[in-house]
Amino acid sequence: MEIVNIGIAGLGTVGSEVAKQLQLNSEFLNKKAGKKLNLVAVSANNKNKVRNFDISNLKWFPDAEKMANSKEISLVIELIGGSDGVALDLCKNSLINGKSVVTANKAMMSKHGYELAKLSETNNCSIAFEASVAGCIPIIKSLRDALSGSSVNSISGILNGTCNYILTEMREKGVSFNEVLKDAQAKGYAEADPSFDVDGIDAAQKLTILSAIAFGIAPDLNNLSVSGIRDVDVTDILFAEELGYRIKLLAFSKFDNGLVQEVSPCMISLDRQISNVEGVLNAVELDTELAGPVMLTGYGAGAEPTATAVLSDIISIVQGKQPNAFGPKTNELNLNVKHGEKESNRYYMRLNVIDKSGVLAGVTEIFRKYALSIESLLQRGRNPNEEVPVVITTHETDYDTLQSVMKDLTNSKELISKPVCMKII
Amino acid sequence: MEIVNIGIAGLGTVGSEVAKQLQLNSEFLNKKAGKKLNLVAVSANNKNKVRNFDISNLKWFPDAEKMANSKEISLVIELIGGSDGVALDLCKNSLINGKSVVTANKAMMSKHGYELAKLSETNNCSIAFEASVAGCIPIIKSLRDALSGSSVNSISGILNGTCNYILTEMREKGVSFNEVLKDAQAKGYAEADPSFDVDGIDAAQKLTILSAIAFGIAPDLNNLSVSGIRDVDVTDILFAEELGYRIKLLAFSKFDNGLVQEVSPCMISLDRQISNVEGVLNAVELDTELAGPVMLTGYGAGAEPTATAVLSDIISIVQGKQPNAFGPKTNELNLNVKHGEKESNRYYMRLNVIDKSGVLAGVTEIFRKYALSIESLLQRGRNPNEEVPVVITTHETDYDTLQSVMKDLTNSKELISKPVCMKII
Repeated sequence: MEIVNIGIAGLGTVGSEVAKQLQLNSEFLNKKAGKKLNLVAVSANNKNKVRNFDISNLKWFPDAEKMANSKEISLVIELIGGSDGVALDLCKNSLINGKSVVTANKAMMSKHGYELAKLSETNNCSIAFEASVAGCIPIIKSLRDALSGSSVNSISGILNGTCNYILTEMREKGVSFNEVLKDAQAKGYAEADPSFDVDGIDAAQKLTILSAIAFGIAPDLNNLSVSGIRDVDVTDILFAEELGYRIKLLAFSKFDNGLVQEVSPCMISLDRQISNVEGVLNAVELDTELAGPVMLTGYGAGAEPTATAVLSDIISIVQGKQPNAFGPKTNELNLNVKHGEKESNRYYMRLNVIDKSGVLAGVTEIFRKYALSIESLLQRGRNPNEEVPVVITTHETDYDTLQSVMKDLTNSKELISKPVCMKII
Repeated sequence: MEIVNIGIAGLGTVGSEVAKQLQLNSEFLNKKAGKKLNLVAVSANNKNKVRNFDISNLKWFPDAEKMANSKEISLVIELIGGSDGVALDLCKNSLINGKSVVTANKAMMSKHGYELAKLSETNNCSIAFEASVAGCIPIIKSLRDALSGSSVNSISGILNGTCNYILTEMREKGVSFNEVLKDAQAKGYAEADPSFDVDGIDAAQKLTILSAIAFGIAPDLNNLSVSGIRDVDVTDILFAEELGYRIKLLAFSKFDNGLVQEVSPCMISLDRQISNVEGVLNAVELDTELAGPVMLTGYGAGAEPTATAVLSDIISIVQGKQPNAFGPKTNELNLNVKHGEKESNRYYMRLNVIDKSGVLAGVTEIFRKYALSIESLLQRGRNPNEEVPVVITTHETDYDTLQSVMKDLTNSKELISKPVCMKII
């Protein structure tokens, strides 16, 4: 059996799991690959850390970049992370040297995916990154290979398990964002610095990768609007339930005349399957032109699901030359992407006001000014001269009108905090 | 741009849609493929039928098999159908002549998939069959390529849209199987001879293809038990709802020591996402060892969804050599598959009896005899000396015990028709 020598750079939970599987599950994996997958080298910060796999016969690289030049290694697994620095250097130089690369690095693929894809083409090798989006959910190969025959109208994804876990817990237990976050951090579902997840950046990076494949463009970090879930209150979650919706941090993109990419908490109708994707699960719903809706669900993170995607990419590469990274060749990708117009939507708003006469008149006057039609207005409970939430749902409106109303509301003296606003879909 | 000459054999709804897309959407498809997809020849029964694409410049093959020997054609699309005969001859000879084949033919892949895979290996070409299972749902490439890094514990699928439509309509409208079937036939959702669908054969063929890829075996039509939905009554559907379940025709397979493949109507807990897959939609839920549950949903039939899978396979093949048909090389597939033991389950039974004293004692005595523990027993309504349904749910029991009880119930003089029995999952 032909031998493929593999080096893993980065031995966090995913890297260690990949190493462990390559050692303990080799018979199964070699049969799939048709070649012997031979882990020969690793690199990480701390050589002396206790590992869950046998490091004794592996070559240790104090500098991960040097794997790119190692004659012993023909396939590089990059699991260091970070959009630039060591990870990027390693991947670029590996490809330049004709070594294929498997990576789970969404930050890097989002920022440098086009360049890396070009390098893989030029040097007749592959870069595979199924693990970079939604863990084990086979969304990259599905979009790029299995559904390539249809154009894609839009992508809707729950791409961040931390946010989905927090929103699910808030709803089920009726506790605040901060409380759930603390609990999630204790359980290891959220990082010590959670901003990457809860502010939507992680989901946004993943979305740019999916958009690139779906729409024949390069990953585009410019045409992108991002808001996270910090402002979602239990009040909003309860109102959503009452109205027949569930709040999810939704990554949405579409391409008509231009590109729209948006990560934001949305109220999703309970009739839509994606509204029922709970806890740490991820999901991606594709609206395809020819095949209708296609939805994929599974674990979007965690050592074993992510390692599955990495191992599957290893097997695919070892079996033979892979498709181009983003589907078409890089010179066929559309690089002149314009900003698309956001579609019209219904919206939910929560306005915190002081419970006194005349306030509602002041608020509704703003809607009248811009001819934004209110569908329902609800003030729950009474709290004279104290704070009370007023909840408004609107009829469908274009995005510019919404922005005008939101601007006036934000500046209105009737509101005692920033208004909360979500798409209803 | 390099040119690939394509021939389509079979111009039913799918074949015509593929031809139409190749003609009308060529810019998009060529960009994806990186080559010019050039439809040059077609074959069907009736040359003079009005088509939804331009047939005037295409070569017409009165005998589809002859495409296999045509020097003008380098890629053959087989959409004739049927496990043997012309379809099989065409595919075998095409592969022998080094022409890759794309097919949607589940009957053929189920019966001859191993042989065809071997031919494609020997002759250094590919056979692609994403469209043969669950229409556009990217389940074959997901199992084979994107999730190859994990072993699969079991597959649960809703693989027949006709059955799922019928069961959904029965539940929503409270009408009988026969009534919905007639309506489905009028709407084109069911064939004039519906047995292939409603008796579970179609789902079973698809299941054997998925099992092969998931478990590293050849498609196995021997280890397979199949029952359809003809015996499902509205009564069962209403009881299911009351108990918190939904009835679906489920295709289930697992491989421990041996292979279990089973197509049968099941009561699925409403907590499981797959229970909410309604109408003509299909779904496949994989229980993977390393990555946990992965579920895919979409249209399992119809001209456009199925054509999407065919077109995607064409693009993949044109882009370069494809993975082996079933993942590992055919000589790595396990061909000595033993019959596996069915797992223990809870069961639902409906027994039609005469409403008179002593009947329940006679029925329950059978359960006592085999120590099968009854969880609940429900006789709905009274109908003295007339037929009345008694509904029983059991505690978990092994399959042999169930069979003994079912045999005695079937022979019991207390029952006035065949007992209905379904797994509860």
